[in-house]
Order: sequence, then structure tokens, then C-alpha cells
Amino acid sequence: MIKIYGKNAVKEAVLNKAQLEAIYVDSNDFKLQDFLKKNNVKYVLKNKLELEKLFGPNHQGIGAIRADYKTYDITYFLQDKPNKRVLILDGINDPHNLGAIIRSVDAFGFMGIILGNNRSVPITPTVVHVSTGAIEYVPLCYVNSLNHAVKTLKDNGYWIVSAEAFGTTKIKDISPDRNIALIIGSEGFGISKTLLKESDYVVAIEMKGHVNSLNASVSAGILMEQLK
Amino acid sequence: MIKIYGKNAVKEAVLNKAQLEAIYVDSNDFKLQDFLKKNNVKYVLKNKLELEKLFGPNHQGIGAIRADYKTYDITYFLQDKPNKRVLILDGINDPHNLGAIIRSVDAFGFMGIILGNNRSVPITPTVVHVSTGAIEYVPLCYVNSLNHAVKTLKDNGYWIVSAEAFGTTKIKDISPDRNIALIIGSEGFGISKTLLKESDYVVAIEMKGHVNSLNASVSAGILMEQLK
Repeated sequence: MIKIYGKNAVKEAVLNKAQLEAIYVDSNDFKLQDFLKKNNVKYVLKNKLELEKLFGPNHQGIGAIRADYKTYDITYFLQDKPNKRVLILDGINDPHNLGAIIRSVDAFGFMGIILGNNRSVPITPTVVHVSTGAIEYVPLCYVNSLNHAVKTLKDNGYWIVSAEAFGTTKIKDISPDRNIALIIGSEGFGISKTLLKESDYVVAIEMKGHVNSLNASVSAGILMEQLK
Repeated sequence: MIKIYGKNAVKEAVLNKAQLEAIYVDSNDFKLQDFLKKNNVKYVLKNKLELEKLFGPNHQGIGAIRADYKTYDITYFLQDKPNKRVLILDGINDPHNLGAIIRSVDAFGFMGIILGNNRSVPITPTVVHVSTGAIEYVPLCYVNSLNHAVKTLKDNGYWIVSAEAFGTTKIKDISPDRNIALIIGSEGFGISKTLLKESDYVVAIEMKGHVNSLNASVSAGILMEQLK
């Protein structure tokens, strides 16, 4: 079970008919109560202080206890479909970044996200909140070895595209009529050498500033938007 | 004065010759100490626990007390230059989003950011940290009235481009050979009606997901990258 909170996160869970053990809602928020009634789900009234105790300061009047998110196997990404898109995250450990990335994956029609078990943030209440509920619709696949996952994708017709500042390819120059797995690395350490070796392209986003690096969720968003 | 912490945030402050009251560095981090020596700045050695007490858990071995960031007047954006780019934030109150946006503004060569005094997050240590030091190079202009600021920009040759899901223009269809002020709204409330009324274009990012909304820093990054 996992605590989820925030209007969008809980609403999407309700709309997605996720298994919710309990829903707690602000006794003064009649709009939220109406939404829950309309969707035939039971809820318990709480005051703001009680909600804050249960869910922290960002509850926005609603929280719930949800069944754990279903996670997926790599075979999910091998289903027969044209021009598949998968995002691979190599070492993203900031829950704000993962939450924002999940929204972009949903928005740009990527099939889901593959993450390494040992260098990634797990699905936390913050991730769910920042995803504003998009996590309901984005398959997450945690694997023991990203190298192995990338090889499997390659063997099954995916082109591997890594994003690194030293890249020499522009995303626009990659033909969209193919299956593409986009790899985004951690801000501190980038993409591992073994994954870079497996890559068909290394793309960079052209920049002209002093610091010359973007937040990982911003890079991911820019590249996914151009691959969508 | 403001507390700043994190390798990139403090390094950029040193490189930018910002006024630093004091620099505290991990007594075991010789790489950071070498960097400071090379740049001829004095520092005080601390252990990890002391750094955490002073700067919280994300200090990365270094923190400093910095003079307040210089803020700018609207006239800064009226200087004579071709194809100017300004970002206007209408109600961004998440410090992670503002920090990430500052990085993108630097990376894509926008002149700076205009924010409303009453509906925006101020410059906090979290904003500085998440900006990874890009804040050293990005002029921020806090104004009492965004409406007034937008009118001033319009009167001085800027085209006003708002980003809203209901927009009918694509960013690619806007000619880049002009001065552009891009407005990004808050995630909860969007862009105010009065600012929308002043807009020459309302642009949308095409999406195809369930939730159909992006993190504000991701939207801002995607649009700035296409306007750069």
C-alpha cells in the first residue's frame, strides 16, 4: 500500500478505478466530496489538521491509501506496435524529477519507463503527487540490469538514443519511423559507459548559456516532445 | 544575505565573483578545497554533521553565505538588442520549478525572468540549489504588477506569447525574428485573464495522454528551446 495525496493524484486514481483502501477528504471541501459521490466511492471526512498529520502539508484537501502500483516486465515493451517509444532512466534519484517525467511520458504517448533497481528513486508519495496522477497511466518497469534491458530492446528492433551534452546528433535528424528507446542519465553522473556503448545515437540539446546543463526532467521533456 | 549550498551553486558563485561572507567546506573533500584555493577564496573546514546543521541534507560538502542576488528593473529588458527573449512567470510558487526554469533560461539565452511580487516564490536556498548556480547569470525582475510589465514590454516592441492548453497557435508558427515575451502560468490557475487579453498569441504544446498537462518547468523548457 502507498499513501497518495493531492487533488489530481487521488482523482486520477478514482477515475482509473485503482484499489483504494481508504479516502480521506476535507470536511469543508464540497467540490471534492461531490466528485467522490459521483464516482460512487466511500470516503471519510477529516479536518485540515488531521489531513496534514496523515499526508503532510501538500494534501490539497484529499488523501488516500492506494494498492501498490502494478509494475511491468520488459516484455511489455516488446508487444507488436509500430514506432514504439520507451524512456530509460539511468540513475534518476530525485522524486520531483521522476514525477515530472512521468507526466511528460503520459503527455507524449511514450509506452512507459524502464528504471534500474539500484540507482533509481522508488515510487514514493512525492513521486505520485508530482506526477499529478499521470502515474496511473504510465507503466513503470524496474529492472536489475539496465544493460540487459537495453540489449533486449535492441535485439527486438529498438534504436537506442542516449542524451548527453557531448552528443553530436540532433534529435530532429533521427527518423521517427522506428522504435526508439531514449536514455536520460543522472544529473551528476550522466549515462553509464556501457549504456553509451550500446547506443545507436548520442543526441545533445543545443545550449548557449553559462552553466550549460538542464534539469533532467526538462531535458527528458524536450527530447520526448520532439520524438512524439 | 542568503544561504547557498551544493557544489554547483557555490562554485558558480565563486566563479561569478559574488560577494561571499563565508564559505564552509567538508574537511574531507580535497577536490572542493583545491577549487577554492585556486580561486583565492578563504574557507572554513567543517565536518559533514556541521554542514548538515548549517545547510540541510543536500549540502554536497559545501555551503556559503552569499550577498542577496541583485534584482533587476523592467528597463533592463528594454535595452536595444535584436530578437530579445524574456520569460514571464505568472504565479509559479514551487521552488523546484523556479530553480529548473532558471537553468533553462540560462541555457537557451533568454535575457531573464519577470515575476509578480505577490504570487511568486522568492529566491530561496532551494531555488538557488536547484538552479545549480545558473541563478548567478539570470536577471530576475520582481514587479508589483505583471499587467503593467506586460504593457510596458508591448509598448516597447515585444510580442506577447502566452502558453495555455487551449491555445491554437503552435510555437513553430511564430516568426523568431522579433522580440518575444513568453508567459507561463501557474499549474493550478493558469495565466490570468488580463494577461491573456494582452497576448498576441496563445500557444499550446500538442499532447496525447490521459492527464494532458506538463510540469510548469517542462512546458517552459520545451517552449524556450523552440524560441531560442
